[in-house]
Amino acid sequence: MKTTGFYLELFENALRGESFISDPLKLYEPIQYTLSLGGKRLRPVLCLLGCDLYGGSCEKAMPAAIAVEIFHNFTLVHDDIMDNSPIRRGQPTVFKKWNTNIAILSGDVMFAKAYEYVARLDTPDLKPILNVFTDTAIKVCEGQQYDMDYEVFSNVGIDDYLNMIILKTAVLTGASLKIGALMAGASTEQSDLLYTFGLNLGIVFQLQDDLLDVFSDETKFGKKTGSDILAGKKTYLFLKSIELMPPGEREEFYVYYTSSENNADEKIAYVKSVYEQLNIRHHVIQLMHIYHNESLKILEKCTGTPEVIIQLKELAETMLVREI
Amino acid sequence: MKTTGFYLELFENALRGESFISDPLKLYEPIQYTLSLGGKRLRPVLCLLGCDLYGGSCEKAMPAAIAVEIFHNFTLVHDDIMDNSPIRRGQPTVFKKWNTNIAILSGDVMFAKAYEYVARLDTPDLKPILNVFTDTAIKVCEGQQYDMDYEVFSNVGIDDYLNMIILKTAVLTGASLKIGALMAGASTEQSDLLYTFGLNLGIVFQLQDDLLDVFSDETKFGKKTGSDILAGKKTYLFLKSIELMPPGEREEFYVYYTSSENNADEKIAYVKSVYEQLNIRHHVIQLMHIYHNESLKILEKCTGTPEVIIQLKELAETMLVREI
Repeated sequence: MKTTGFYLELFENALRGESFISDPLKLYEPIQYTLSLGGKRLRPVLCLLGCDLYGGSCEKAMPAAIAVEIFHNFTLVHDDIMDNSPIRRGQPTVFKKWNTNIAILSGDVMFAKAYEYVARLDTPDLKPILNVFTDTAIKVCEGQQYDMDYEVFSNVGIDDYLNMIILKTAVLTGASLKIGALMAGASTEQSDLLYTFGLNLGIVFQLQDDLLDVFSDETKFGKKTGSDILAGKKTYLFLKSIELMPPGEREEFYVYYTSSENNADEKIAYVKSVYEQLNIRHHVIQLMHIYHNESLKILEKCTGTPEVIIQLKELAETMLVREI
Repeated sequence: MKTTGFYLELFENALRGESFISDPLKLYEPIQYTLSLGGKRLRPVLCLLGCDLYGGSCEKAMPAAIAVEIFHNFTLVHDDIMDNSPIRRGQPTVFKKWNTNIAILSGDVMFAKAYEYVARLDTPDLKPILNVFTDTAIKVCEGQQYDMDYEVFSNVGIDDYLNMIILKTAVLTGASLKIGALMAGASTEQSDLLYTFGLNLGIVFQLQDDLLDVFSDETKFGKKTGSDILAGKKTYLFLKSIELMPPGEREEFYVYYTSSENNADEKIAYVKSVYEQLNIRHHVIQLMHIYHNESLKILEKCTGTPEVIIQLKELAETMLVREI
């Protein structure tokens, strides 16, 4: 039986066969660099799984898998500028290794390259795929803007936060699966179902990401922990803490968390101690299980190949426990 | 008989009917702002002309006209960050009015929105249009990278410069015409012909732009003159000056022009005086006429509606004398 490792290897082989080096080098080297840093390749694997699920050819869906991975990496290159993040996957980010202008422009051309791969798809009807892809790109930008807005807004609720991560993260995991399904000729109903499965999966993924940002082993995670705390990001961990703590303590913690005046190491240590006191990890895991169970329920309506459904279930399980 | 004003009005009416305001406002307001600042709307007018030329419906080509204008404005929003330009069309640029992060992200969503309009096109075969659009987007990014590279490279030749402006400017004027022609169902041969006409038109446009950057009336031009001189951009004016001056004077002028240590007003005044001594305006106009004549020659092979061919000819004439 195939494992997700099978799809990953298929994708890595295909990606290795593509060259992104061309003139002018300063434009293209950052693309090759970014794509060669690896990463989990979650989105292209989902795309290939979505295609295989409905009996499609992974080879035919490969340009779509490459497109979603390039698009995802484009968003990382631009997000790293906006978030001033120096390290990604254990290596300097593009704007740090080169400069901001190069990161802006390389990102732009990556976005265009992603469309180049979408346009290469051998399918009788490209429009639905093009629409999902573009709609997703727009939503991801909206999510990133909300993410930045919420750093300074004072009245962010848990619903706002969840809506933000749906836009910023989950629509792309949903779209990757859906595009794969469409490449296999799946029905609108089935491909929409898979999209919703992917949304729930993406939410679990992001909640785990937020947990890892606070509690992970830095050497495994590939970036410094505590970056959300330092940036005062209003994650579920923070918002739930506010909800759980006695009303009299909320304002002081809120002001402390959102202030940039504190010593970095002290701030991280203090906020972590608050999270631990409130057993916030337990609450995040509880919410992850709600979305996880929802994703499994959706999968029950899926008419695809049973072996691939098992793969999707296993992948959904790993979202709950991944360490990187 | 229709004039270019007819197509311009058609486009402005259509654009006014589109709203780009949505949540989150910080993402979408800069789009509305940028598009409402006007500009020449050269690319959408070319797109509609290209369609009308082969008997197509301007209404059907309108989403393409909007797409090329949004795409063009996206490149301006990002270029203004990279070039640190404070003013565009007499108003603050997006990164100055808001900030760099907002300009990056609004630009990104504009790029996606441009594709949204491309995908809306009602045509039996979207792929050739999608390919022209994506290929053009990639080339425009390459052109911008060469433009930045050449600010620091010491061995830039006139050919390099011309190749750069073809990528940065002329491919989009060519593509706008070609996409319009494709929407009218023109043959590959005719739409390629129109692309080449647009390339030549775009080169003339950019050479005139470079002239205006040095010699224009600032109140008409909508931005400060001398910005190319200040940035030490290796324009045709500069490169031709080096060629025309006695070999013994070249190095000193080169070092002076590319140094950022000079007083701004003095540098602009001095370089302008060199350009005037060498009668560089005459040499630029001479080159513009070469490309202009080439564009007219191409037009002779065009089998489209004679009335629209006259319009294209007149538009090409205005490129030689425009003041904004």
